[in-house]
Amino acid sequence: MSKGIRFQQVGEKVETYFLIKSAVKGVASNGKPFLTLILSDHTGDIEAKLWGCSPEDEATFCSQVIVHLHGEVAEYRGRLQMKISSIRPTSAMDQVNIADFVRSAPLAPADMLDEITQAIFEMKNPNIQRITRHLLKKHQQAFLEVPAATKNHHEFVSGLAYHVVSMLKIAKSLADLYPTLDTDLLYAGIILHDLGKVRELSGPIDTSYTLEGKLIGHISIMVSEIAEAAKELAIEGEEVLVLQHLILSHHGKGEWGSPKVPVIREAEVLHMIDNIDAKMNMMDRALERVQPGDFSERVMAMDNRSFYKPAFHEPPLDF
Amino acid sequence: MSKGIRFQQVGEKVETYFLIKSAVKGVASNGKPFLTLILSDHTGDIEAKLWGCSPEDEATFCSQVIVHLHGEVAEYRGRLQMKISSIRPTSAMDQVNIADFVRSAPLAPADMLDEITQAIFEMKNPNIQRITRHLLKKHQQAFLEVPAATKNHHEFVSGLAYHVVSMLKIAKSLADLYPTLDTDLLYAGIILHDLGKVRELSGPIDTSYTLEGKLIGHISIMVSEIAEAAKELAIEGEEVLVLQHLILSHHGKGEWGSPKVPVIREAEVLHMIDNIDAKMNMMDRALERVQPGDFSERVMAMDNRSFYKPAFHEPPLDF
Amino acid sequence: MSKGIRFQQVGEKVETYFLIKSAVKGVASNGKPFLTLILSDHTGDIEAKLWGCSPEDEATFCSQVIVHLHGEVAEYRGRLQMKISSIRPTSAMDQVNIADFVRSAPLAPADMLDEITQAIFEMKNPNIQRITRHLLKKHQQAFLEVPAATKNHHEFVSGLAYHVVSMLKIAKSLADLYPTLDTDLLYAGIILHDLGKVRELSGPIDTSYTLEGKLIGHISIMVSEIAEAAKELAIEGEEVLVLQHLILSHHGKGEWGSPKVPVIREAEVLHMIDNIDAKMNMMDRALERVQPGDFSERVMAMDNRSFYKPAFHEPPLDF
Amino acid sequence: MSKGIRFQQVGEKVETYFLIKSAVKGVASNGKPFLTLILSDHTGDIEAKLWGCSPEDEATFCSQVIVHLHGEVAEYRGRLQMKISSIRPTSAMDQVNIADFVRSAPLAPADMLDEITQAIFEMKNPNIQRITRHLLKKHQQAFLEVPAATKNHHEFVSGLAYHVVSMLKIAKSLADLYPTLDTDLLYAGIILHDLGKVRELSGPIDTSYTLEGKLIGHISIMVSEIAEAAKELAIEGEEVLVLQHLILSHHGKGEWGSPKVPVIREAEVLHMIDNIDAKMNMMDRALERVQPGDFSERVMAMDNRSFYKPAFHEPPLDF
Amino acid sequence: MSKGIRFQQVGEKVETYFLIKSAVKGVASNGKPFLTLILSDHTGDIEAKLWGCSPEDEATFCSQVIVHLHGEVAEYRGRLQMKISSIRPTSAMDQVNIADFVRSAPLAPADMLDEITQAIFEMKNPNIQRITRHLLKKHQQAFLEVPAATKNHHEFVSGLAYHVVSMLKIAKSLADLYPTLDTDLLYAGIILHDLGKVRELSGPIDTSYTLEGKLIGHISIMVSEIAEAAKELAIEGEEVLVLQHLILSHHGKGEWGSPKVPVIREAEVLHMIDNIDAKMNMMDRALERVQPGDFSERVMAMDNRSFYKPAFHEPPLDF
Amino acid sequence: MSKGIRFQQVGEKVETYFLIKSAVKGVASNGKPFLTLILSDHTGDIEAKLWGCSPEDEATFCSQVIVHLHGEVAEYRGRLQMKISSIRPTSAMDQVNIADFVRSAPLAPADMLDEITQAIFEMKNPNIQRITRHLLKKHQQAFLEVPAATKNHHEFVSGLAYHVVSMLKIAKSLADLYPTLDTDLLYAGIILHDLGKVRELSGPIDTSYTLEGKLIGHISIMVSEIAEAAKELAIEGEEVLVLQHLILSHHGKGEWGSPKVPVIREAEVLHMIDNIDAKMNMMDRALERVQPGDFSERVMAMDNRSFYKPAFHEPPLDF
Repeated sequence: MSKGIRFQQVGEKVETYFLIKSAVKGVASNGKPFLTLILSDHTGDIEAKLWGCSPEDEATFCSQVIVHLHGEVAEYRGRLQMKISSIRPTSAMDQVNIADFVRSAPLAPADMLDEITQAIFEMKNPNIQRITRHLLKKHQQAFLEVPAATKNHHEFVSGLAYHVVSMLKIAKSLADLYPTLDTDLLYAGIILHDLGKVRELSGPIDTSYTLEGKLIGHISIMVSEIAEAAKELAIEGEEVLVLQHLILSHHGKGEWGSPKVPVIREAEVLHMIDNIDAKMNMMDRALERVQPGDFSERVMAMDNRSFYKPAFHEPPLDF
Repeated sequence: MSKGIRFQQVGEKVETYFLIKSAVKGVASNGKPFLTLILSDHTGDIEAKLWGCSPEDEATFCSQVIVHLHGEVAEYRGRLQMKISSIRPTSAMDQVNIADFVRSAPLAPADMLDEITQAIFEMKNPNIQRITRHLLKKHQQAFLEVPAATKNHHEFVSGLAYHVVSMLKIAKSLADLYPTLDTDLLYAGIILHDLGKVRELSGPIDTSYTLEGKLIGHISIMVSEIAEAAKELAIEGEEVLVLQHLILSHHGKGEWGSPKVPVIREAEVLHMIDNIDAKMNMMDRALERVQPGDFSERVMAMDNRSFYKPAFHEPPLDF
Repeated sequence: MSKGIRFQQVGEKVETYFLIKSAVKGVASNGKPFLTLILSDHTGDIEAKLWGCSPEDEATFCSQVIVHLHGEVAEYRGRLQMKISSIRPTSAMDQVNIADFVRSAPLAPADMLDEITQAIFEMKNPNIQRITRHLLKKHQQAFLEVPAATKNHHEFVSGLAYHVVSMLKIAKSLADLYPTLDTDLLYAGIILHDLGKVRELSGPIDTSYTLEGKLIGHISIMVSEIAEAAKELAIEGEEVLVLQHLILSHHGKGEWGSPKVPVIREAEVLHMIDNIDAKMNMMDRALERVQPGDFSERVMAMDNRSFYKPAFHEPPLDF
Repeated sequence: MSKGIRFQQVGEKVETYFLIKSAVKGVASNGKPFLTLILSDHTGDIEAKLWGCSPEDEATFCSQVIVHLHGEVAEYRGRLQMKISSIRPTSAMDQVNIADFVRSAPLAPADMLDEITQAIFEMKNPNIQRITRHLLKKHQQAFLEVPAATKNHHEFVSGLAYHVVSMLKIAKSLADLYPTLDTDLLYAGIILHDLGKVRELSGPIDTSYTLEGKLIGHISIMVSEIAEAAKELAIEGEEVLVLQHLILSHHGKGEWGSPKVPVIREAEVLHMIDNIDAKMNMMDRALERVQPGDFSERVMAMDNRSFYKPAFHEPPLDF
Repeated sequence: MSKGIRFQQVGEKVETYFLIKSAVKGVASNGKPFLTLILSDHTGDIEAKLWGCSPEDEATFCSQVIVHLHGEVAEYRGRLQMKISSIRPTSAMDQVNIADFVRSAPLAPADMLDEITQAIFEMKNPNIQRITRHLLKKHQQAFLEVPAATKNHHEFVSGLAYHVVSMLKIAKSLADLYPTLDTDLLYAGIILHDLGKVRELSGPIDTSYTLEGKLIGHISIMVSEIAEAAKELAIEGEEVLVLQHLILSHHGKGEWGSPKVPVIREAEVLHMIDNIDAKMNMMDRALERVQPGDFSERVMAMDNRSFYKPAFHEPPLDF
Repeated sequence: MSKGIRFQQVGEKVETYFLIKSAVKGVASNGKPFLTLILSDHTGDIEAKLWGCSPEDEATFCSQVIVHLHGEVAEYRGRLQMKISSIRPTSAMDQVNIADFVRSAPLAPADMLDEITQAIFEMKNPNIQRITRHLLKKHQQAFLEVPAATKNHHEFVSGLAYHVVSMLKIAKSLADLYPTLDTDLLYAGIILHDLGKVRELSGPIDTSYTLEGKLIGHISIMVSEIAEAAKELAIEGEEVLVLQHLILSHHGKGEWGSPKVPVIREAEVLHMIDNIDAKMNMMDRALERVQPGDFSERVMAMDNRSFYKPAFHEPPLDF
């Protein structure tokens, strides 16, 4: 298998397999139909246009089909685009497997689950511990598969679990520096903060928002789930309210989707840690193909900034 | 009983009973203690300063005590203030009763409950009807007593029920004009939209925010309650999501406390009706003591505007 | 005649007459000219592209020409588009009439005028009544024809009158609920609030902004007209100022075009009623072709929201 | 007569006459009444507190009374305040005259009128010239007396005329530098832009807003006046619209009170010139008593900034 | 040579030489490559599309090449575009010279330098004078060549010097009207305010931002340069701080790039003068090809406004 | 010595020594002067009012005087206040020492310097290392004494050094988690980011802003210092620009004082780390005297929020 689309530069010739992630039909200004394909492999994805496509093409090149393709990486309006020379659907003969074309977290689900379970194990407050364990267990399967978002950051299989594991590590460091932090609360907040995404998002592949996601959102979903869990577990302490507050306020502000601003120290810290890990992930993605001395593509979710890689930094890896 | 503090003008002499709603101690710039009293009767309240008070005064004139007072209505920095000539606590001899000093909605609780029950009775969608009836019944007692807010609008006993009844009337009128409106949904949204205030607010008198109100808020409280009600009633249709969306979005925007903007027509209408009734109530309060040709006190919750009563309008009633 | 373009779904074949509302020439990326046509019938309009058009085509297919067309309703970037199979101009033989292709209010102008005249008749304040009657009479002909806007809401022949009639109905309902409202003032404000549009807009068909509309705007136009009317009628009371204030403030805020915020109760109510009727109209338009369980096109003037039609609602009518 | 209150420093003893500009009663925290007096002479004004005043004092020391006073200039919360040692009302014996206590523009009204008349005389476009002359003549008396504002800038007798004369001078300079500017339009815009203040403000002394000023505002007043003038003079050219646009847009933005943004070059220039002269006036006022190396009082209308006088600048004049 | 592209109207046939300012390759929706050329002459520039270009075309028609072209001025989406009929590169035979295709300031560099030198000569404060002279001398060559910006205003050879000369003229006029202004400070501020652009911008032709420009910006560059100049000249007075403050604050606000708001009168005046000259330049550019009675293209840097040329103004010159 | 003012509760009687940090004279509403004193010990400070003070009192109780006091901790408008029973200045007899009344960082300056020196020692890039070492050495003495701010966070002796040491610890943790971070750059950014405060602030005690601080600010001061350091050390690499960018952008946005937004990953991380440590410090301060189940005073610099200490958290230490 090739080094992967995420690491290819403008001008490179490509002859390889791709999974079609989505295929949308358009009409060109010459009146002819074309397809906009999102092609993916295990490292990332790239857009391609299939001009002047026939009705057969439309039927053939649709979402979730694996294709073989000759082409060249080009650039269009500051974004990469695959210029297709030839394309064909694959058959059993090609011996390709859809699981090989999906981008996943760099850690195995079982390892991530171990880390999270360990954090729960360390909790001393039984109310917080029981609610967290209960909800993780309830949604464990989906939690280990779902991405953290449909785009922007951690938008890959197991992305949410990977985001949680990274946040737990930051939390541990901060707790060393600021010993008055309540780690029970902070770890529980981290583990649960985006767990509602298992209902907000459609699933690990070709992820979209569910109706529940659009009308209610993962924050309110999880607040209800905590209420329900507390009831089932017959827990009545203030911990329930405080945990709900952490979830509710973790976007930091009303205009960012939180109906309450953080008014508990651990809620503010949760918001900051979430922010750091999301931004680190976005900047790493933006810079990974950039040569020293160049600027990255613009990052929409970070005020549309373009990031600079200093000339004295290392060039991107070529694997 | 006198015509009531809400209808008295600057300069009027007063000799009557008041309930002390709150009493806060301060230190004057001459170093002596004083009390800031909020005095109320069945029509409203007024601030008063008790200068140079003794420790006995502090012990005597505290919240929920009924006093007899001689004084004069004055104005200080654009707000009314009672200037105290003499004040004394009451005894059994005075034959006064705390219930006579509390401002309430102009309709009786039973009548308001009838109106609301009728609206539920008219619903055709059984899922919406059952959830609404279930939640109203669950909180009925508190719902009929609680104010709609701690200040700004409908801040009196049974204020929430009165607000709901007024909103139902507006909704009926709009449904006549725009027949495609789903009245089941709209009525249910109106009845439930602020029901979470029975847990957000401390109660009908000297109302403050509960811890749950501060950390979670009435919107998220009610979204959880609907989830729980649906579970108990074994209702699974899309009505549950849609009802939750109406509650969630009824403040209209993230910065006003709604984590989702309205994306269902009835949700937008609910937000507009809530807005109209709250603003009508605030403007009526502001203008009720204003003479034709004068401006009202500033209304904080309406962009701090001061409202004008045209010279060709009627003077305030004198009852 | 067919059921009308407003009620046709993606994929439907069309063979019918249309009026060309506008025709704009462009150059395609293959260097060839094309025409962007807005085709309309009595129910609404749709965009179409005429690719590779000749100079003769440009001369033939221009604004206000009625054409006969074979095509298919398609979707492009979330908006409907007519895909043209064949198109020809009509001749006398076709026996088609431009009046049949224009979208109008659902009520007849005479009936709307009756309703408005009745509201004026009911006014008790002679100054308000005389100014309102004078200005309506002065602009009556244009008032009954002009749309309420060039796009967004009530953008059809007689749209303004229809908007006014709907607002009067809401006002009557609110006056029943809030009896202290001055209906003379409120009705007059409703009738006059957008009357300046008879000078701001170019006319009922293919409506654009006049120079006066662009430089001065309907709000300031009407304030001047009221001043002039009062002078002609020798009216000097405060009613003149108050009416001008209602017009001036009916957009609610400086950034929405009102140089003064509403400081009279009826001015605030006028603003809210205007808002309700405009939004109801926009949401109805957005949802009328949407199937239960689907989202509408985005509505620019409502924060670019896309509205959801619950699965338990009725499907659109098919007439 | 003394050098004037505007030029006195903290700590200076004062024995002189003042005009009471306003007198407002308050109640001190010891329960005793006091008066807040604004004392003025021909150079400016200063606040003073008259503590523990009797009912006779209240009747004696009211607005428009001239008093004789011993006191000392003090500073309270960063603002100057007159500390009163003794105060008495004046009688015929004192031989003082109210006209001597009023702050006026540094130029005589007749001279300012000459300058403005000259600008009108130079206009070449007869429509612009006639409208400007007509409106100036109509309001000439009040125009020469009224201040440009109740506070902030040019808040003295004839302040508006002085502001207009200064703006005309800037306009002449800019027209030399940018010869394509239409000076007819620009001069007319300058002369008329704030002329509506003769109806918005109550008069030259102790100026407040009229009801018309509060409900309509000087911008809309003048737009109506131009419409009326054009009608009386039977002028119908585009100049009328353009002049109205200049008035309408001279605050620059909706949130600053202009219902239209400037879309004519001279309208934009008018807005910039208005801005310069207002700000120069405010900064001069703020800095006139400041020693080199010190910061001024905060200027509310300039984002609450405090301005610094460099140590190498001249100290304030002492006359 | 023709009258220049800046003065040509839609529909005019063109047969002339142009310099290619930039050439960017794209892929059309028919899959074929095309070039987007910016063609310039000494009066301005225009966009053109070269459709269906071959690899040879791409190699031939690149930046800084002079071409001969037959075409027609067209309009596309409200902006002018050159429709190419034929295009060829030039050879020695054509006897064309790159210097003839570059737009420059209307004044000669030597004359502008004289004006600026005169302003420095007039300064009385030796510290201000020496720093200004030192920095101007240090960067004199680049200062006389660089534009004032890459787009928006004064975006031509020597644009910065021309901007400075215009600002000095406005400053002189204002100093006449407001005699307390410190002209030493104001002139120095004007001369130095954008001098950092000699390091922020790449040079006079095909100007882009340098890395230093992107990471640091001309404001901070010049603050450092003043610090360094003061050190070299052994100047220690407060003038250094004050000059740095003028540079630092000349964009007026944090969100416009100034880390400090102006708190010295001359700093505020510098900001206003900069604003006036930039806006006059932008409005003149926007209106120069507009016919009386028409609106200009939209001006991005002025809130995207489109400016109107009154019907009673002169039509554009035709040279 | 007592347990310290920072740990005393409302109602506690106090008999101890305090340093007067500032003394400001006011005039009470009874016309008598009073002093507002800020009293401090080694743990924090508290406001006190000295009513009815004589001229001798004013001369006696001024800044930097140590006093002996009997009083009681009270609360006024939600903030603590010392109610003075008696107060006297101290003499040699009291054997008190000003150094004992100053709040300092919890680490010794020498230890903090060691930590920072170690971070510099670990740098691999010689340009970054040399500039950082040079500037730290140049300002070492002041750096180890100055607070990080005049209020809000780390407002105590050596506060800046303590803030830097904490930030270095966070940086090390993040570098472990995100190994692509350039720690040379990040550590240098942390050490230098606020170093300009040694010129922006007046010194360690009773800290105020210098003129340079007000006109230029610590960000621009340090950018100039880096330029100067690079020149003295003859360093010319891109590291200079990049370091300057980190300093320039560390407030994150224009409206927060950064003329450039961060466009280098380490610059963004520097901004986030600065934010975390400042907020942790502010929340710890706010919560340290709060009992479980209570809310803290409002924290101005954190959107005026009041923070809640959950009932299941530990009560404050009592030392």
